[in-house]
Amino acid sequence: MRDVAVVGAGMVPFGERFDQGMKELLPVTLANALASVDKGMERSEIQAAWFGQLQTSDGHPAGVLADSCGLLDIPVTRIENQCATGNDAVRNATLAIASGAIDVALVIGADKTRETPSVSTFWDWMGLARDRGWDYPLGLIAPANFALHVARYMHEYDVRPEHLAMVAVKNHHNAVTNPIAHLRMEVTVEQVLAAPRVVGPFGVLDCTPQSDGAAALLLASAEVADRYTDHPVWVRGVGLGLDRVMHAHKADMTTFPATTKAAKAAYSMAGIGPSDIDVAEVHDCFSGVELMDYEDLGFCERGDAKKLIESGATKIGGSLPVNPSGGLKAKGHPPGATGVAQCVELFEQLRGEACNQLDSPRWGLAHNIGGPTAVSAVTILEAPRG
Amino acid sequence: MRDVAVVGAGMVPFGERFDQGMKELLPVTLANALASVDKGMERSEIQAAWFGQLQTSDGHPAGVLADSCGLLDIPVTRIENQCATGNDAVRNATLAIASGAIDVALVIGADKTRETPSVSTFWDWMGLARDRGWDYPLGLIAPANFALHVARYMHEYDVRPEHLAMVAVKNHHNAVTNPIAHLRMEVTVEQVLAAPRVVGPFGVLDCTPQSDGAAALLLASAEVADRYTDHPVWVRGVGLGLDRVMHAHKADMTTFPATTKAAKAAYSMAGIGPSDIDVAEVHDCFSGVELMDYEDLGFCERGDAKKLIESGATKIGGSLPVNPSGGLKAKGHPPGATGVAQCVELFEQLRGEACNQLDSPRWGLAHNIGGPTAVSAVTILEAPRG
Repeated sequence: MRDVAVVGAGMVPFGERFDQGMKELLPVTLANALASVDKGMERSEIQAAWFGQLQTSDGHPAGVLADSCGLLDIPVTRIENQCATGNDAVRNATLAIASGAIDVALVIGADKTRETPSVSTFWDWMGLARDRGWDYPLGLIAPANFALHVARYMHEYDVRPEHLAMVAVKNHHNAVTNPIAHLRMEVTVEQVLAAPRVVGPFGVLDCTPQSDGAAALLLASAEVADRYTDHPVWVRGVGLGLDRVMHAHKADMTTFPATTKAAKAAYSMAGIGPSDIDVAEVHDCFSGVELMDYEDLGFCERGDAKKLIESGATKIGGSLPVNPSGGLKAKGHPPGATGVAQCVELFEQLRGEACNQLDSPRWGLAHNIGGPTAVSAVTILEAPRG
Repeated sequence: MRDVAVVGAGMVPFGERFDQGMKELLPVTLANALASVDKGMERSEIQAAWFGQLQTSDGHPAGVLADSCGLLDIPVTRIENQCATGNDAVRNATLAIASGAIDVALVIGADKTRETPSVSTFWDWMGLARDRGWDYPLGLIAPANFALHVARYMHEYDVRPEHLAMVAVKNHHNAVTNPIAHLRMEVTVEQVLAAPRVVGPFGVLDCTPQSDGAAALLLASAEVADRYTDHPVWVRGVGLGLDRVMHAHKADMTTFPATTKAAKAAYSMAGIGPSDIDVAEVHDCFSGVELMDYEDLGFCERGDAKKLIESGATKIGGSLPVNPSGGLKAKGHPPGATGVAQCVELFEQLRGEACNQLDSPRWGLAHNIGGPTAVSAVTILEAPRG
């Protein structure tokens, strides 16, 4: 396999983007990514694109991307893999460049969750994400199905609501200084605990917002990367893991096997382990999910996530900062964009250019867990050499 | 790039498959593909899967595939690219194997167009395929948007309704002897011309049926192909082309630029040209579209498709048989499955095992054109050597 680098990255502010439709968000995001390329890149140099979009609100996704971005002469594939869509798009583009078929690819992720063509469309999106015959009629849409896991996890490991709240407090704090974040406000443990309930154990401040937004990466083969930058970030590992769809079939609610499989694949490909990771952007769609992610990604032993969050290790300045961007919780969560945006944050962190810059991280990890907790994608990036 | 082979292929009968849901169709299709492997293959040997599905009627597609087929330990990516979904899934799997990351992959395509969760879901599917702000409200769903093209094409090149009918007659005839075809009945030119109108110039016998079905390919790197068969079919070219989404932006209604771009890419990769093709499965979603395909794929000059169909060259036994399987027109059209099923037919033709076997074809071409006539995928396969 050929080595693959990230040579550019860009995004647009996440939030309620009623000001722009998909056909405006996509070209602005691409322009931002192109503008980030140190030595410049013309859009005519892009040879193929992968478009991660979960919720299709504006017609044929690949066509809309090609048409609105002036990319009508290259292949565009839409990837959909629930909330793992973004990092799975990174994975597919990486493999295509590694094959030698192309040298330069665009990965772009976008969704407009605040703009649905109809109420029925919204419920179709919810149905799309889970077993339609059993779990969906039971009401196991996203908050409820993650709540089943986190409630059991809290029971088994004596995790307190305060531990969940500490995740929300940390990630909201990080988002305050991130200009593209959706929810740029501090919250306190007391506020999180007192917030209106969504579904136990989650109050509204434990939940990610529904966001509109887009994010893009420009990938290049090692052979041509130096045309674009002297500071390429390297894609070292890509992993994707699946799990059973129906909640009645989950053998252990306190872990996400999809994550452990995706992480194992990505670590193996990168030739590193969890202890090598210097910064991670993980899927904190609900506060308690970040704690489970710590364990599934190998950042601590099973049941020890509460100690990790208590210790402050995952804050900016700690030994393993997690979600320095603010995470899904506070940066926001347009599902197709989320995984790509995680990699945008890591690209900037690994080059020393992030808004909440860490101290010279070398290895970054991006992680999604999605759908009926049935799919996870992990991407591992390495800082420029020397 | 490493060479990639097709070492197995299988499908299920297309039609109104109310007898089986997606979770039954997928494992049966996989079992048929595995059973076709000459020297045998265990499902545990499959290292990754690409799942082409356009219309999601039963929850998270990648998860449903992994769960129902016992493929929970490998990555599964869903590809969606409108009616080019199947051949784009073949393209992504081919690139992944070519990269060296994996040696054995499953490509499976499936849709259940006859089973929609709700009426609103059906119209959301229709909206998904075209510009939602302009073309969709104008009624440019599939029959109408293709009708705009074919009507103009007929006007410019003096193509008669009888020429369209000849396509339907040919493809229905081929389907009669194909046990997995949806519409196994002969039709006559008179019947096609007299059939109830759908939208001019199409009567109901000019239109593909809406089908349920699934099809699968097992791909392997050249390095391991001989573990599975002594008669691998080679994937020599994969191409994907896009075009503008809105019909108001189409510069010339008498051609599909998406097809010409996809074909150019696939021919170039294969190192051959249109005159080398011995058998083709092309996208005849509406009879007249097959005529336009002849020209866009380079099988004849612009405006000469009527001569080609008149000559009988594209019949079984002619110089360039097109849609020996019966095509979308009569074999049926579950969109996610269609492109994969075309490759299943070519796999069998190129190995001398097809139900409507041709005389030793060497080069086969599969072609889709879809969405708002904005995306096309072309796959070129070569017969086993010697």
